[in-house]
Amino acid sequence: MTAERAEPSDEALVDLARRVGGALRAGGRRLATVESCTGGLVAHLITEIPGSSDYFVGALVTYSNELKEALADVPADVLEAHGAVSAQVARAMAEGARRRLAVDVAVAVTGVAGPDGGSAAKPVGLTYVAVADPDGIDVRRYLWDGDRTANKRHSAAAALELVLERATATARAR
Amino acid sequence: MTAERAEPSDEALVDLARRVGGALRAGGRRLATVESCTGGLVAHLITEIPGSSDYFVGALVTYSNELKEALADVPADVLEAHGAVSAQVARAMAEGARRRLAVDVAVAVTGVAGPDGGSAAKPVGLTYVAVADPDGIDVRRYLWDGDRTANKRHSAAAALELVLERATATARAR
Repeated sequence: MTAERAEPSDEALVDLARRVGGALRAGGRRLATVESCTGGLVAHLITEIPGSSDYFVGALVTYSNELKEALADVPADVLEAHGAVSAQVARAMAEGARRRLAVDVAVAVTGVAGPDGGSAAKPVGLTYVAVADPDGIDVRRYLWDGDRTANKRHSAAAALELVLERATATARAR
Repeated sequence: MTAERAEPSDEALVDLARRVGGALRAGGRRLATVESCTGGLVAHLITEIPGSSDYFVGALVTYSNELKEALADVPADVLEAHGAVSAQVARAMAEGARRRLAVDVAVAVTGVAGPDGGSAAKPVGLTYVAVADPDGIDVRRYLWDGDRTANKRHSAAAALELVLERATATARAR
Protein backbone atom coordinates (compact mmCIF):
# COMPACT_ATOMS: atom_id res chain seq x y z
CA MET A 1 0.00 0.00 0.00
CA THR A 2 1.14 3.54 -0.60
CA ALA A 3 1.32 5.81 2.41
CA GLU A 4 -1.11 8.67 2.29
CA ARG A 5 -0.99 9.08 6.04
CA ALA A 6 1.07 11.61 7.99
CA GLU A 7 4.40 10.74 9.59
CA PRO A 8 3.66 9.13 12.97
CA SER A 9 4.53 11.24 16.01
CA ASP A 10 6.83 10.08 18.79
CA GLU A 11 3.75 9.69 20.97
CA ALA A 12 1.92 7.56 18.39
CA LEU A 13 4.94 5.29 17.93
CA VAL A 14 5.45 4.76 21.66
CA ASP A 15 1.72 4.19 22.12
CA LEU A 16 1.87 1.48 19.46
CA ALA A 17 4.84 -0.09 21.25
CA ARG A 18 2.87 -0.05 24.50
CA ARG A 19 -0.08 -1.82 22.89
CA VAL A 20 2.27 -4.38 21.32
CA GLY A 21 3.67 -5.07 24.77
CA GLY A 22 0.20 -5.51 26.24
CA ALA A 23 -0.82 -7.96 23.52
CA LEU A 24 2.40 -9.98 23.84
CA ARG A 25 1.94 -10.18 27.61
CA ALA A 26 -1.68 -11.27 27.21
CA GLY A 27 -0.65 -13.96 24.73
CA GLY A 28 2.40 -15.06 26.73
CA ARG A 29 4.72 -14.53 23.79
CA ARG A 30 8.28 -13.27 23.40
CA LEU A 31 9.40 -10.99 20.58
CA ALA A 32 12.56 -10.17 18.66
CA THR A 33 13.13 -7.79 15.75
CA VAL A 34 15.44 -8.12 12.76
CA GLU A 35 15.88 -4.79 11.05
CA SER A 36 17.56 -3.42 8.00
CA CYS A 37 16.26 -0.02 6.87
CA THR A 38 14.80 0.89 10.29
CA GLY A 39 18.27 0.43 11.78
CA GLY A 40 17.09 -0.52 15.29
CA LEU A 41 14.23 1.97 15.55
CA VAL A 42 11.62 -0.74 16.16
CA ALA A 43 13.67 -2.23 19.00
CA HIS A 44 14.27 1.26 20.41
CA LEU A 45 10.53 1.95 20.46
CA ILE A 46 9.69 -1.39 22.08
CA THR A 47 12.28 -0.74 24.80
CA GLU A 48 10.83 2.68 25.57
CA ILE A 49 8.18 0.77 27.54
CA PRO A 50 9.14 -0.03 31.17
CA GLY A 51 9.22 -3.77 31.78
CA SER A 52 9.64 -4.60 28.08
CA SER A 53 12.40 -7.06 29.00
CA ASP A 54 9.55 -9.35 30.10
CA TYR A 55 8.58 -9.98 26.46
CA PHE A 56 11.41 -8.52 24.33
CA VAL A 57 14.66 -10.50 24.11
CA GLY A 58 16.55 -8.37 21.61
CA ALA A 59 17.22 -7.53 18.00
CA LEU A 60 19.46 -8.09 15.05
CA VAL A 61 20.20 -5.01 12.99
CA THR A 62 21.39 -6.65 9.79
CA TYR A 63 22.33 -3.56 7.85
CA SER A 64 24.83 -5.31 5.58
CA ASN A 65 23.96 -8.31 3.43
CA GLU A 66 26.78 -10.20 5.13
CA LEU A 67 25.00 -9.87 8.47
CA LYS A 68 21.65 -10.85 6.93
CA GLU A 69 23.33 -14.13 6.04
CA ALA A 70 25.50 -14.58 9.12
CA LEU A 71 23.03 -13.54 11.82
CA ALA A 72 19.59 -14.21 10.34
CA ASP A 73 20.43 -17.16 8.09
CA VAL A 74 19.12 -15.46 4.95
CA PRO A 75 20.31 -17.75 2.14
CA ALA A 76 22.87 -16.14 -0.18
CA ASP A 77 20.94 -17.36 -3.23
CA VAL A 78 17.74 -15.66 -2.02
CA LEU A 79 19.64 -12.37 -1.58
CA GLU A 80 21.19 -12.83 -5.00
CA ALA A 81 17.96 -13.74 -6.77
CA HIS A 82 15.60 -11.18 -5.20
CA GLY A 83 17.79 -8.46 -3.66
CA ALA A 84 17.89 -7.34 -0.02
CA VAL A 85 14.66 -5.35 -0.40
CA SER A 86 12.20 -8.09 -1.33
CA ALA A 87 9.34 -10.08 0.16
CA GLN A 88 11.51 -13.19 0.02
CA VAL A 89 14.32 -11.65 2.08
CA ALA A 90 11.88 -10.13 4.61
CA ARG A 91 10.36 -13.58 5.07
CA ALA A 92 13.77 -15.25 5.42
CA MET A 93 14.90 -12.62 7.95
CA ALA A 94 11.83 -13.19 10.11
CA GLU A 95 12.10 -16.98 9.92
CA GLY A 96 15.83 -16.89 10.61
CA ALA A 97 15.58 -14.51 13.56
CA ARG A 98 12.68 -16.45 15.06
CA ARG A 99 14.74 -19.63 14.99
CA ARG A 100 18.14 -18.15 15.93
CA LEU A 101 16.83 -16.02 18.79
CA ALA A 102 14.39 -18.71 19.96
CA VAL A 103 11.37 -16.42 20.22
CA ASP A 104 7.67 -16.91 19.51
CA VAL A 105 7.37 -13.84 17.30
CA ALA A 106 9.97 -12.21 15.03
CA VAL A 107 9.32 -9.11 12.94
CA ALA A 108 11.57 -8.20 10.01
CA VAL A 109 11.88 -4.92 8.11
CA THR A 110 13.81 -4.35 4.90
CA GLY A 111 13.44 -1.34 2.62
CA VAL A 112 15.00 1.57 0.78
CA ALA A 113 15.03 4.43 3.28
CA GLY A 114 16.70 6.83 0.87
CA PRO A 115 17.74 9.33 -0.28
CA ASP A 116 20.12 7.05 -2.24
CA GLY A 117 19.80 3.39 -3.17
CA GLY A 118 16.54 3.61 -5.11
CA SER A 119 15.95 2.31 -8.63
CA ALA A 120 13.04 2.11 -11.08
CA ALA A 121 12.19 -1.38 -9.85
CA LYS A 122 12.87 -0.61 -6.19
CA PRO A 123 12.25 3.07 -5.51
CA VAL A 124 13.05 4.96 -2.32
CA GLY A 125 10.31 4.17 0.18
CA LEU A 126 9.74 0.57 -0.93
CA THR A 127 9.60 -1.53 2.26
CA TYR A 128 8.67 -5.08 3.21
CA VAL A 129 7.60 -6.10 6.71
CA ALA A 130 7.31 -9.75 7.73
CA VAL A 131 6.09 -11.30 10.97
CA ALA A 132 6.78 -14.94 11.79
CA ASP A 133 4.95 -16.54 14.71
CA PRO A 134 3.66 -20.03 15.57
CA ASP A 135 0.69 -19.50 13.23
CA GLY A 136 2.83 -18.80 10.18
CA ILE A 137 4.23 -15.82 8.32
CA ASP A 138 2.66 -12.62 7.03
CA VAL A 139 4.59 -10.37 4.60
CA ARG A 140 3.40 -6.93 3.51
CA ARG A 141 4.66 -4.41 0.98
CA TYR A 142 4.61 -0.64 1.46
CA LEU A 143 5.71 2.35 -0.59
CA TRP A 144 6.36 5.40 1.58
CA ASP A 145 6.78 8.85 0.09
CA GLY A 146 8.74 10.62 2.85
CA ASP A 147 12.37 11.46 3.47
CA ARG A 148 14.77 9.03 5.14
CA THR A 149 13.62 9.78 8.69
CA ALA A 150 9.91 9.68 7.78
CA ASN A 151 10.31 6.43 5.84
CA LYS A 152 12.02 4.81 8.84
CA ARG A 153 9.19 5.97 11.10
CA HIS A 154 6.46 4.76 8.74
CA SER A 155 8.22 1.40 8.47
CA ALA A 156 8.57 1.09 12.25
CA ALA A 157 4.88 1.87 12.70
CA ALA A 158 3.95 -0.72 10.07
CA ALA A 159 6.11 -3.34 11.84
CA LEU A 160 4.54 -2.60 15.22
CA GLU A 161 1.03 -2.63 13.72
CA LEU A 162 1.58 -6.01 12.09
CA VAL A 163 2.92 -7.49 15.34
CA LEU A 164 -0.02 -5.97 17.21
CA GLU A 165 -2.53 -7.41 14.77
CA ARG A 166 -1.13 -10.92 15.05
CA ALA A 167 -0.45 -10.77 18.78
CA THR A 168 -3.98 -9.52 19.43
CA ALA A 169 -5.42 -12.44 17.47
CA THR A 170 -3.24 -14.78 19.53
CA ALA A 171 -4.34 -13.27 22.83
CA ARG A 172 -8.01 -13.55 21.80
CA ALA A 173 -7.63 -17.20 20.84
CA ARG A 174 -6.35 -18.21 24.28
CA MET B 1 30.63 10.72 35.93
CA THR B 2 27.24 11.98 37.01
CA ALA B 3 25.17 13.75 34.40
CA GLU B 4 24.54 17.39 35.17
CA ARG B 5 23.85 18.15 31.54
CA ALA B 6 20.46 18.49 29.88
CA GLU B 7 18.87 15.67 27.91
CA PRO B 8 20.30 15.79 24.39
CA SER B 9 17.90 16.95 21.68
CA ASP B 10 17.11 14.92 18.56
CA GLU B 11 19.19 17.40 16.59
CA ALA B 12 22.19 17.04 18.92
CA LEU B 13 22.04 13.24 18.76
CA VAL B 14 21.82 13.14 14.97
CA ASP B 15 24.61 15.70 14.72
CA LEU B 16 26.80 13.45 16.86
CA ALA B 17 25.94 10.50 14.62
CA ARG B 18 26.91 12.57 11.57
CA ARG B 19 30.29 13.44 13.11
CA VAL B 20 30.86 9.80 14.04
CA GLY B 21 30.21 8.87 10.41
CA GLY B 22 32.66 11.49 9.18
CA ALA B 23 35.40 10.30 11.52
CA LEU B 24 34.86 6.63 10.61
CA ARG B 25 35.02 7.48 6.90
CA ALA B 26 38.20 9.49 7.42
CA GLY B 27 39.78 6.62 9.31
CA GLY B 28 38.52 3.93 6.94
CA ARG B 29 36.85 2.00 9.74
CA ARG B 30 33.64 -0.01 10.04
CA LEU B 31 31.40 0.10 13.11
CA ALA B 32 28.89 -2.13 14.89
CA THR B 33 26.94 -1.55 18.09
CA VAL B 34 25.95 -4.01 20.81
CA GLU B 35 23.24 -2.55 23.00
CA SER B 36 21.37 -3.50 26.11
CA CYS B 37 19.69 -0.55 27.88
CA THR B 38 19.68 1.69 24.78
CA GLY B 39 17.68 -0.99 22.97
CA GLY B 40 18.88 -0.10 19.46
CA LEU B 41 18.79 3.68 19.83
CA VAL B 42 22.50 4.09 18.99
CA ALA B 43 22.08 2.05 15.80
CA HIS B 44 18.94 4.01 14.92
CA LEU B 45 20.81 7.31 15.29
CA ILE B 46 23.76 6.13 13.21
CA THR B 47 21.39 5.01 10.45
CA GLU B 48 19.66 8.38 10.36
CA ILE B 49 22.66 9.54 8.32
CA PRO B 50 22.37 8.91 4.56
CA GLY B 51 25.12 6.61 3.32
CA SER B 52 25.78 5.14 6.78
CA SER B 53 25.81 1.66 5.26
CA ASP B 54 29.31 2.59 4.00
CA TYR B 55 30.68 2.33 7.56
CA PHE B 56 27.93 0.74 9.68
CA VAL B 57 27.38 -3.01 9.31
CA GLY B 58 24.72 -3.53 11.99
CA ALA B 59 23.94 -4.13 15.62
CA LEU B 60 23.16 -6.69 18.26
CA VAL B 61 20.50 -5.66 20.74
CA THR B 62 21.23 -8.13 23.51
CA TYR B 63 18.41 -7.24 25.86
CA SER B 64 18.34 -10.62 27.62
CA ASN B 65 21.35 -12.18 29.30
CA GLU B 66 20.86 -15.24 27.09
CA LEU B 67 21.48 -13.11 23.99
CA LYS B 68 24.49 -11.41 25.60
CA GLU B 69 25.99 -14.90 25.81
CA ALA B 70 24.69 -16.33 22.53
CA LEU B 71 25.28 -13.34 20.25
CA ALA B 72 28.11 -11.37 21.85
CA ASP B 73 30.02 -14.23 23.51
CA VAL B 74 29.80 -12.70 26.99
CA PRO B 75 31.00 -15.51 29.28
CA ALA B 76 28.31 -16.83 31.63
CA ASP B 77 30.73 -16.62 34.57
CA VAL B 78 31.37 -12.92 33.91
CA LEU B 79 27.62 -12.25 33.89
CA GLU B 80 27.25 -14.29 37.06
CA ALA B 81 30.15 -12.67 38.88
CA HIS B 82 29.58 -9.02 37.94
CA GLY B 83 25.98 -8.74 36.72
CA ALA B 84 24.78 -7.50 33.32
CA VAL B 85 25.35 -3.86 34.28
CA SER B 86 29.10 -3.84 34.91
CA ALA B 87 32.33 -2.66 33.35
CA GLN B 88 33.32 -6.28 32.80
CA VAL B 89 30.19 -7.12 30.81
CA ALA B 90 30.40 -3.89 28.77
CA ARG B 91 33.97 -4.81 27.86
CA ALA B 92 33.03 -8.40 26.98
CA MET B 93 30.10 -7.21 24.83
CA ALA B 94 32.34 -4.84 22.86
CA GLU B 95 35.06 -7.46 22.39
CA GLY B 96 32.54 -10.13 21.45
CA ALA B 97 30.67 -7.97 18.96
CA ARG B 98 33.89 -6.72 17.38
CA ARG B 99 34.99 -10.29 16.77
CA ARG B 100 31.63 -11.79 15.83
CA LEU B 101 30.60 -8.99 13.46
CA ALA B 102 34.13 -8.62 12.06
CA VAL B 103 34.31 -4.84 12.42
CA ASP B 104 37.12 -2.44 13.32
CA VAL B 105 35.13 -0.67 16.02
CA ALA B 106 32.40 -2.01 18.32
CA VAL B 107 30.60 0.07 20.94
CA ALA B 108 28.71 -1.56 23.80
CA VAL B 109 26.14 -0.06 26.19
CA THR B 110 24.71 -1.70 29.29
CA GLY B 111 22.85 0.06 32.07
CA VAL B 112 19.77 0.39 34.24
CA ALA B 113 17.37 2.58 32.24
CA GLY B 114 14.64 2.40 34.89
CA PRO B 115 12.17 2.97 36.35
CA ASP B 116 12.54 -0.59 37.71
CA GLY B 117 15.60 -2.78 38.05
CA GLY B 118 17.66 -0.48 40.25
CA SER B 119 19.33 -1.43 43.54
CA ALA B 120 21.53 0.26 46.12
CA ALA B 121 24.65 -1.06 44.41
CA LYS B 122 23.32 -0.49 40.89
CA PRO B 123 20.86 2.38 40.88
CA VAL B 124 18.66 3.48 37.99
CA GLY B 125 20.83 5.50 35.61
CA LEU B 126 24.02 3.50 36.14
CA THR B 127 25.47 2.83 32.68
CA TYR B 128 28.69 1.48 31.22
CA VAL B 129 29.89 2.23 27.70
CA ALA B 130 32.80 0.35 26.11
CA VAL B 131 34.50 0.85 22.77
CA ALA B 132 36.78 -1.82 21.30
CA ASP B 133 38.94 -0.95 18.32
CA PRO B 134 42.36 -2.00 16.99
CA ASP B 135 44.05 0.21 19.60
CA GLY B 136 42.38 -1.49 22.56
CA ILE B 137 39.36 -1.01 24.77
CA ASP B 138 38.02 1.97 26.69
CA VAL B 139 35.26 1.52 29.29
CA ARG B 140 33.47 4.38 31.03
CA ARG B 141 30.94 4.59 33.82
CA TYR B 142 28.05 7.06 34.00
CA LEU B 143 25.22 7.74 36.41
CA TRP B 144 22.32 9.51 34.74
CA ASP B 145 19.54 11.10 36.74
CA GLY B 146 16.72 11.16 34.19
CA ASP B 147 13.69 9.03 33.42
CA ARG B 148 13.87 5.95 31.19
CA THR B 149 13.77 7.89 27.93
CA ALA B 150 16.28 10.50 29.09
CA ASN B 151 18.66 7.85 30.42
CA LYS B 152 18.56 6.03 27.07
CA ARG B 153 19.31 9.28 25.26
CA HIS B 154 22.17 10.21 27.59
CA SER B 155 23.64 6.74 27.16
CA ALA B 156 23.35 6.90 23.37
CA ALA B 157 25.08 10.29 23.35
CA ALA B 158 27.87 8.94 25.56
CA ALA B 159 28.35 5.95 23.25
CA LEU B 160 28.52 8.17 20.16
CA GLU B 161 30.91 10.58 21.90
CA LEU B 162 33.27 7.77 22.88
CA VAL B 163 33.28 6.37 19.35
CA LEU B 164 33.88 9.88 17.99
CA GLU B 165 36.78 10.48 20.34
CA ARG B 166 38.52 7.26 19.38
CA ALA B 167 37.67 7.46 15.68
CA THR B 168 38.95 11.05 15.53
CA ALA B 169 42.23 9.99 17.09
CA THR B 170 42.48 7.20 14.51
CA ALA B 171 41.77 9.53 11.59
CA ARG B 172 44.42 11.99 12.85
CA ALA B 173 47.03 9.25 13.18
CA ARG B 174 46.72 8.23 9.54
